[in-house]
Amino acid sequence: MNSEFQYREKIPVAILGATGAVGQRFVELLAIHPWFEIVSLAASERSVGKPYREAVNWLMASPLPQNLAEMVIEPCRPGIGGVLAFSALDSSVATEVEQAFEKAGVMVVSNTRNHRMEPMVPLLIPEVNADHIDPLLKASVGARKIITNPNCSAIGLCVALKPLFDQFGLEAVNVVTMQAISGAGYPGIASLDIVDNVIPYISGEEEKLETEPLKIFGKAGHQGIEPASFAISAHCNRVAVTDGHTASVSVKLKKRARPEEILHAWQTFTTVAQELQLPMAPRSPICYFEEERFPQPKLHRHLEKGMAIAIGRLRPCPLFDYKFTILSHNTIRGAAGGAILCAELLVRKGHIFW
Amino acid sequence: MNSEFQYREKIPVAILGATGAVGQRFVELLAIHPWFEIVSLAASERSVGKPYREAVNWLMASPLPQNLAEMVIEPCRPGIGGVLAFSALDSSVATEVEQAFEKAGVMVVSNTRNHRMEPMVPLLIPEVNADHIDPLLKASVGARKIITNPNCSAIGLCVALKPLFDQFGLEAVNVVTMQAISGAGYPGIASLDIVDNVIPYISGEEEKLETEPLKIFGKAGHQGIEPASFAISAHCNRVAVTDGHTASVSVKLKKRARPEEILHAWQTFTTVAQELQLPMAPRSPICYFEEERFPQPKLHRHLEKGMAIAIGRLRPCPLFDYKFTILSHNTIRGAAGGAILCAELLVRKGHIFW
Amino acid sequence: MNSEFQYREKIPVAILGATGAVGQRFVELLAIHPWFEIVSLAASERSVGKPYREAVNWLMASPLPQNLAEMVIEPCRPGIGGVLAFSALDSSVATEVEQAFEKAGVMVVSNTRNHRMEPMVPLLIPEVNADHIDPLLKASVGARKIITNPNCSAIGLCVALKPLFDQFGLEAVNVVTMQAISGAGYPGIASLDIVDNVIPYISGEEEKLETEPLKIFGKAGHQGIEPASFAISAHCNRVAVTDGHTASVSVKLKKRARPEEILHAWQTFTTVAQELQLPMAPRSPICYFEEERFPQPKLHRHLEKGMAIAIGRLRPCPLFDYKFTILSHNTIRGAAGGAILCAELLVRKGHIFW
Amino acid sequence: MNSEFQYREKIPVAILGATGAVGQRFVELLAIHPWFEIVSLAASERSVGKPYREAVNWLMASPLPQNLAEMVIEPCRPGIGGVLAFSALDSSVATEVEQAFEKAGVMVVSNTRNHRMEPMVPLLIPEVNADHIDPLLKASVGARKIITNPNCSAIGLCVALKPLFDQFGLEAVNVVTMQAISGAGYPGIASLDIVDNVIPYISGEEEKLETEPLKIFGKAGHQGIEPASFAISAHCNRVAVTDGHTASVSVKLKKRARPEEILHAWQTFTTVAQELQLPMAPRSPICYFEEERFPQPKLHRHLEKGMAIAIGRLRPCPLFDYKFTILSHNTIRGAAGGAILCAELLVRKGHIFW
Repeated sequence: MNSEFQYREKIPVAILGATGAVGQRFVELLAIHPWFEIVSLAASERSVGKPYREAVNWLMASPLPQNLAEMVIEPCRPGIGGVLAFSALDSSVATEVEQAFEKAGVMVVSNTRNHRMEPMVPLLIPEVNADHIDPLLKASVGARKIITNPNCSAIGLCVALKPLFDQFGLEAVNVVTMQAISGAGYPGIASLDIVDNVIPYISGEEEKLETEPLKIFGKAGHQGIEPASFAISAHCNRVAVTDGHTASVSVKLKKRARPEEILHAWQTFTTVAQELQLPMAPRSPICYFEEERFPQPKLHRHLEKGMAIAIGRLRPCPLFDYKFTILSHNTIRGAAGGAILCAELLVRKGHIFW
Repeated sequence: MNSEFQYREKIPVAILGATGAVGQRFVELLAIHPWFEIVSLAASERSVGKPYREAVNWLMASPLPQNLAEMVIEPCRPGIGGVLAFSALDSSVATEVEQAFEKAGVMVVSNTRNHRMEPMVPLLIPEVNADHIDPLLKASVGARKIITNPNCSAIGLCVALKPLFDQFGLEAVNVVTMQAISGAGYPGIASLDIVDNVIPYISGEEEKLETEPLKIFGKAGHQGIEPASFAISAHCNRVAVTDGHTASVSVKLKKRARPEEILHAWQTFTTVAQELQLPMAPRSPICYFEEERFPQPKLHRHLEKGMAIAIGRLRPCPLFDYKFTILSHNTIRGAAGGAILCAELLVRKGHIFW
Repeated sequence: MNSEFQYREKIPVAILGATGAVGQRFVELLAIHPWFEIVSLAASERSVGKPYREAVNWLMASPLPQNLAEMVIEPCRPGIGGVLAFSALDSSVATEVEQAFEKAGVMVVSNTRNHRMEPMVPLLIPEVNADHIDPLLKASVGARKIITNPNCSAIGLCVALKPLFDQFGLEAVNVVTMQAISGAGYPGIASLDIVDNVIPYISGEEEKLETEPLKIFGKAGHQGIEPASFAISAHCNRVAVTDGHTASVSVKLKKRARPEEILHAWQTFTTVAQELQLPMAPRSPICYFEEERFPQPKLHRHLEKGMAIAIGRLRPCPLFDYKFTILSHNTIRGAAGGAILCAELLVRKGHIFW
Repeated sequence: MNSEFQYREKIPVAILGATGAVGQRFVELLAIHPWFEIVSLAASERSVGKPYREAVNWLMASPLPQNLAEMVIEPCRPGIGGVLAFSALDSSVATEVEQAFEKAGVMVVSNTRNHRMEPMVPLLIPEVNADHIDPLLKASVGARKIITNPNCSAIGLCVALKPLFDQFGLEAVNVVTMQAISGAGYPGIASLDIVDNVIPYISGEEEKLETEPLKIFGKAGHQGIEPASFAISAHCNRVAVTDGHTASVSVKLKKRARPEEILHAWQTFTTVAQELQLPMAPRSPICYFEEERFPQPKLHRHLEKGMAIAIGRLRPCPLFDYKFTILSHNTIRGAAGGAILCAELLVRKGHIFW
């Protein structure tokens, strides 16, 4: 992560739910972050009081950073330190815990679904709807201190759709996902269920994929978000891939567009996240591949440290206007990395004080 | 395979391309067939003259039948025996070889794509378009002696669509496949390309899936087939599954249908293949699963010896009328087993003489 | 399963722990057994009172037999019916439950490890130590009514070693296993732990593999078993295979043996289980493959309905005398199928009364 | 790759066999190397004249470096530039090509097996036998200009054994490997052969693993190498892992050693490669894991950029003295990375002139 911009003092942050799969990814990425410094690792009662290395079943490929390994786990209660809390909490406990931090004046950036659809809570992808932040966070009535990161599949889809939405308008989107096992957390999917298999169902996922993008592409005002009006249909499947969600997408646009216009829209796509050189931001949010057998999770999930959306196979569709394939890293871009990018934008837009 | 009906003498058959992955499946299934008897195994020059066990890299889970193991490989030329030839030839050589057998008066039942779209050649799924046989094979002008088995993904799709087409009419179909590696033959897909990966492209597959069903659902006359007129869009993906193609399907019907009417149409679906008790025919061509996480290739590809189509997850679609998941065994129902079922129907309809 | 021998009335049996992975395998195999009839399916309190189809997450490839689907789950307490109880209980509860059935006069055939090493309990592989049954079960003092099935990896190893032990004597055995995920039950191994991975550790497995064979090859007397005296070292690894444990084995023999003598010993190996034509018995307990790339779990685990041990790659060893590869189906031969074979032997030897 | 030491001008190098799987790894690692600069990419006639991006089916996770993408493929003949040639040639052509470069005065560092066992050719692992270089390369008679990198499994094994050999002496080694599919190159292993499977055989691999370590641990003189005298037995298996060879190893030592002495030997192991801060050298050649379920290929193959050997599970052995598990990255440490480390040592020892 590089950014020309540096702060004199690092911003103290807490990680809520630090021992789970997404929590570990937060730890890995924040351990080397130029702006943020982890001051608290919080988890469930079972882990409180243990050093992190004992409480966690570390699954990341990079070694557990030495200084964090010895940090003692704290309870998920306000007062543990940090002006910003990244939440990777289980959704069974997230509502209450996140609101407690919010009330205590800590900005919460959450990867959990619980507050995503609340009217005054931004559902944020910096490359897509950075303009939602100010109207909501600075609202005179009902302003919140919770920012949410969308569903892992929704993020890749929305980034891919953003330039099309802006330049041609969207009428309908059909999306069929082939999602990685890491999306289900740990232990998550039993190996007997996925080796040599496909599971054509992921609980709650299709609903999220059919509703979250409408809020993300909506218009923000001081009373909340007016959702966008295009239609989405989703089929969600689980496949034997460790990381990286692939999706077969079909879109109907409002305006006619030639294939080269679509490609141009993707290839020139750049946003405030790139302008501000946010440390987690990919240099280009979208990378289009000409090779017809690309993108593939094994080869492209790590593009731009896992933060770019890979797209390929743009072709006309007999039913919609166009069809194509997208791929994004579900636990980096689709979870911890995406949430950190949100926090970076909040910092640069002046919503974090330390 | 059971059938009340038995013939006094077995029908002598040849297998063309007997050493490949589909050829082996033909051998495995025909070795225990109540009507057919393998009298010739033919393959490329490289294998001619060798005993089958030496020429083949046997990949089936059941052991290579002893008597066939010692059968000497013959060249792919008419005169090798058999009144019926099952073709699993590579498409680079199939056109010429199949036509040579046809000219020599041997009925060819082919799993290869080469003759599928020719006007007077039936593209046959016994449960779907058995009525194509007589008009084409008995045409006074241009009648052929080649029957083709559709693409492996098209077969499962067409069986699933057949009762909907008949009862409600089809307007549009979107299908996204997750196909097994055995569909690419042997050696086929390199392991480095598919372990921990998805390949979002299969050469020529989407074209087949967008055109073959229109011929299959078309109307047969003495000059050929008038194709059906609904629209199909296909995305084809390869996943790390050994056998069994899964597909996420969305359909728009001509007539309104309630979910229970769709289910009823599937659950009561039975055809001439069942009536005639053809040995390879499943008792029910379609098996619907109520469990939302089904069907799955690992659990359901072997339903009714691999000949039934598994369906699940019927639900309304925000864009089309309904969406659902289908699964079928690609090398049994989608290749060798399907072709044998075609041959059985030809036998019972009096098109094979011995 | 075929056997010339038939009983006039089927023998009523119970399955304890019927909902787990091994319990399901018992159900699948006993549902079509010529001698046994399932009269009780028992499981933990959570499942009691539910029909089996609701209580179970059926993972077998064959469909759940209709009559058993509706059978209501009973508690794991004596009095539930059956003169014989097959136990697939979790080892946390097996000791107490199995002893309760034993005290109630029900013969228990257990796949659980709890009673395996008790002095008067046979640790039985019909092809290896059928002669242990009578001395132990008919002992005047301390006779038990529990028979145990060895560890899944130990069974394949002991069958492969038996003819060598008998004809040449064993001095030392080194065994390195590559074990299937189904060996850990369901949900068992998390997919994130095994896709694209090897786990070089299985809790308790090496100890079992280093001790059980010594009891199995021991001498039975009326006070128990005098263990055999050769030495075994085991390394146990988990690999991404659904079913079938593979092992790389090295052996030092007491007597010199030429390779063809070893092969002859394996190829002519036959035992009381074959003589008595026990329904689950393979026609040949050992199948040796000449091809140097065999045996392989995907191709050979189903040999003789999963009951044969596949061996290959016999070659001289620079450290021991010989090395070779073995493979056996861990949930059939190594668990439910093996236990049923034990029960069949008990029946034919007159230890079951009904 | 970091090294305090820098050269004023980069050393021009060629890659022979640049389009294959190992060739690509050379390209990836050398593209960012502080000392070496790729000036020629050579491959077979079929590729000559094409830009590299067209000639290669790029399989690395990092993107193909822009400048190399456009480099035109040259034939594998001396005169193409470079004072050093890294060879990833197929062994069917390597003997002749490598000798042609050698005769033309180019130092060849080869990953191919062809010259490995020749008396005057070093079989080099910088951490193990750096002392072989001078006696052989500076021999007054018969000195060669070819250096070879050992077999991928042999490298990890020899690094793990080195401190034991030095401190306690080795008497016997039994090694059972579970090797990654990338070890077979591309396309290499067919997916149908390895998904849900183990292949218990790798052609030629056991022979290499039983002989190469004896040369590596031998004593170099001006007439060649006197091999070490311990005994090795190897079983080689292929498993469904993308990268990273795991091995279950048993060793018999000449001197008694307590477990903590073994651990100490590994944990303090450091060599000339570390002292000289060679850019590819890991800070510690060996990383020992206390957790009993480690090391695992998925988690530990990338340790120290893929150059460290991971070891775990040290425990006493009933047959040998100790047993343990080792893991190393087969295409980095075991191939391209290892060969580059050899070249770095040659540079620092003054054997490369530019």
